[in-house]
Amino acid sequence: MPNPTRATVLLAHGSSDPHWLQPFEQLLTGIRAGAAAQRVELAYMELARPALDEQIRALAAAGFTHIDMLPLFFAAGRHLRRDVPAQLAALQTELQAQGQPLQLQLHAPVGLEPEVAQAISHVVIRQLGQ
Amino acid sequence: MPNPTRATVLLAHGSSDPHWLQPFEQLLTGIRAGAAAQRVELAYMELARPALDEQIRALAAAGFTHIDMLPLFFAAGRHLRRDVPAQLAALQTELQAQGQPLQLQLHAPVGLEPEVAQAISHVVIRQLGQ
Repeated sequence: MPNPTRATVLLAHGSSDPHWLQPFEQLLTGIRAGAAAQRVELAYMELARPALDEQIRALAAAGFTHIDMLPLFFAAGRHLRRDVPAQLAALQTELQAQGQPLQLQLHAPVGLEPEVAQAISHVVIRQLGQ
Repeated sequence: MPNPTRATVLLAHGSSDPHWLQPFEQLLTGIRAGAAAQRVELAYMELARPALDEQIRALAAAGFTHIDMLPLFFAAGRHLRRDVPAQLAALQTELQAQGQPLQLQLHAPVGLEPEVAQAISHVVIRQLGQ
């Protein structure tokens, strides 16, 4: 059963180029279709909206108390290892101080999952043969 | 049969954080294992080495005349739609003027391939259920 207090934010890097955003919006649409009972949103780390803090504040205001962040990244660098955890910790402290109980959990980048890495390998090896 | 004058460069964004680079190096190792007869290299657009132009110059000097660039990106933004094509065009002109015949071809980001997008959706939907 889906937990009505739990939401997921797909976190992408962001770009000022609207072409860059489209594939992420398509992914969100596909994921929502496959998990209709869950609340899933998209947020960007920079250069596009909704920004991560904006999205988290909106979900907290809507009553969600546990928010999982799934980074749509191939790898974890400075942003995901330092900047985002610091931002989440500050936001959690701020919202808790305002009486909003909130658990924010940052997960590993989806690109590190074996299934995704294997799909990338397949696609590249197929293209090499052409 | 592999073409001895054709090489492939996997193009990643790059980061100053060595942790970020590791998954790309692992991908390269896996892809080379699956396509041993092909010349496959890795290059970064910024903040890490080998840089794209460095890698292309090395392959051209080694006798490769057709180099395919496969971007390890989820989407094509400003970098892949403007900066990289301009860089490749300038490099091709420069090397051709030096008597090095060179065809550089930039392909679509691997993240746009249905197989990769589907793997990402699977992974996310599986994590939503936990």
